[in-house]
Amino acid sequence: MKTIYSPRHHGHAGNVELVAGAVVPAFEMPSRAEYIRSRVEAVKLGPILAPNEHDIAIAKRVHRADFIDFLPTVWPLWVESGRDGTAMPYTWPTRGLRGDVRPQGIDAQLGYYSFDAGATFVAGTWDAIKSSHDVAITAAGLVKAGERAAFALCRPPGHHAGAAFAGGYCFINNAASAAQWFVDQGAKRVAILDVDYHHGNGTQEIFYRRGDVLVVNLHGDPMVEYPFFLGHADERGEGPGEGFNVNYPMPWGTTWETWSAALEEGCRRVADYAPDVLVVSLGVDTFEKDPISKFRLKTEDYPKIGRRIAQLGLPTLIVMEGGYAVEEIGVNAVGVLTGFEEG
Amino acid sequence: MKTIYSPRHHGHAGNVELVAGAVVPAFEMPSRAEYIRSRVEAVKLGPILAPNEHDIAIAKRVHRADFIDFLPTVWPLWVESGRDGTAMPYTWPTRGLRGDVRPQGIDAQLGYYSFDAGATFVAGTWDAIKSSHDVAITAAGLVKAGERAAFALCRPPGHHAGAAFAGGYCFINNAASAAQWFVDQGAKRVAILDVDYHHGNGTQEIFYRRGDVLVVNLHGDPMVEYPFFLGHADERGEGPGEGFNVNYPMPWGTTWETWSAALEEGCRRVADYAPDVLVVSLGVDTFEKDPISKFRLKTEDYPKIGRRIAQLGLPTLIVMEGGYAVEEIGVNAVGVLTGFEEG
Ligand SMILES: [Zn+2]
Ligand SMILES: [Zn+2]
Repeated sequence: MKTIYSPRHHGHAGNVELVAGAVVPAFEMPSRAEYIRSRVEAVKLGPILAPNEHDIAIAKRVHRADFIDFLPTVWPLWVESGRDGTAMPYTWPTRGLRGDVRPQGIDAQLGYYSFDAGATFVAGTWDAIKSSHDVAITAAGLVKAGERAAFALCRPPGHHAGAAFAGGYCFINNAASAAQWFVDQGAKRVAILDVDYHHGNGTQEIFYRRGDVLVVNLHGDPMVEYPFFLGHADERGEGPGEGFNVNYPMPWGTTWETWSAALEEGCRRVADYAPDVLVVSLGVDTFEKDPISKFRLKTEDYPKIGRRIAQLGLPTLIVMEGGYAVEEIGVNAVGVLTGFEEG
Repeated sequence: MKTIYSPRHHGHAGNVELVAGAVVPAFEMPSRAEYIRSRVEAVKLGPILAPNEHDIAIAKRVHRADFIDFLPTVWPLWVESGRDGTAMPYTWPTRGLRGDVRPQGIDAQLGYYSFDAGATFVAGTWDAIKSSHDVAITAAGLVKAGERAAFALCRPPGHHAGAAFAGGYCFINNAASAAQWFVDQGAKRVAILDVDYHHGNGTQEIFYRRGDVLVVNLHGDPMVEYPFFLGHADERGEGPGEGFNVNYPMPWGTTWETWSAALEEGCRRVADYAPDVLVVSLGVDTFEKDPISKFRLKTEDYPKIGRRIAQLGLPTLIVMEGGYAVEEIGVNAVGVLTGFEEG
């Protein structure tokens, strides 16, 4: 399996985030991608290739154009306003407030275009976002060209990013944009299988009213787990999308036994849908030692995930999402990939 | 004029807030109320009285009961979850996310019940919230009993708090609850005049569909000023409330000349409405030296505000809201009160 990787993610470094009433170094850090890249090399998974540049207009097929146009302006506007450090919002248009008028000023617009203070900007963030999207679309191109599978080593991740909002370390929804790219290249049906610990609220929101992209999510129950405000089992899609959104929320402490049963069900839903191509949002924050998550998957479980997904027999794009147990992230993420190759 | 004041606000101290990507000491601090109290004494405005205890059920007439019931549980739940410091949320149910399912866990519920990280909790916060509400209702009782006017020296303030959310230093909307209390005591029409620098988004939201409470707001244009997502001139109320919400957004740098013209218009709207009683949300963050605001009112302007409001000839409850130029807050706020007494 080929891996697409860009060193430009390194510019997105040194960010802080808001946790428990304090601003602390972000768990989403550059070493995550580097541990994965090293492991890809160590196990000789296959060649690691640089992405091609792709027109950012591709991302506007799933995101609102004004949101995408806003992203590269954040850091310059932040600096222009006399600030340094990490750019993040401090107030949001939640229910009872208006989401239909875009205010001026960088603080207000950061709030307008996000759902929390978790998608933060430093000088190199936009370049990393752009390169992460290039990684996804380049890897999608390999699959479109006939590869059985390809691995998009995206950083920053994407699945929390919605049509017009960032949040939870995510800016552009790489998996959603790649799924749309397959549709635009002629795919009649695309399935997205999100195995990250957290619900892919952005992916769900983007495709919620569409029947040509099936979205299946396995994740921590939003009643107790981030992002809290989406991901319940009763969210099944709307209008033409009715029945094409499938959520498997699971409790804290979930182990392989329960999790793999949900994976099995999810894979059957994907198989029944008979998509032309599968996009996997791969997070390994389901790992028992993940510092911000509460499932109990073990390192030995990750190859089994890959094997089960491979059994679907579909052209498969694997897009990197979360995972914060940094030292084990390479072994676990690449475990899925090697399992896939054996599957 | 009598002042109602409770020392219990002191328990709401040492909070931090999120500003420009950092957590810093909150601008809303106990000395604010103390400078005002001292100035009330210095100018011999009148007696300073303690509030009576009032049933918190009064606040549930304008707030959702589950929101009010949540507030006293915050600090115990925060401590129970192993944290100290300042309790604040880190993610919110903004557009695209669900606001109809209340999640579990303190972080999630703080997000569910707020629109930013600006209404934060320490050990004494609930007691201060409760006493601030007691202050407002006790002062309202004086007006109901026949006093020409009364001053509710509330802290924390209230006008950003909506039916089911805190934010912007506000938890219970003291002015809104007092207005409702007047209605419940038999008032046919109540007017609220909010002269704080910031739009009283909570007050607007609470009464937006009601014709028995006129809400008039003078404030920094939300296109450039907090709370950014409400307070535009085209927000005129809905349904039975159509025409009973009036916003005067003004640009940064607004001086007395422009501001007083809006006050004049606002007072005429109040006069035309002919309410039984007037509630004034008094913020003095319109002051030229306010550290977080951008209007240019001078100390000499505040008595003129009081005089103009007094000319309405209405029974008047004055409720303290914002103002962060701490050393001048007493002179400016009490300037409005002495102006009122002369008016
Ligand atoms: Zn995750
Ligand atoms: Zn204010």
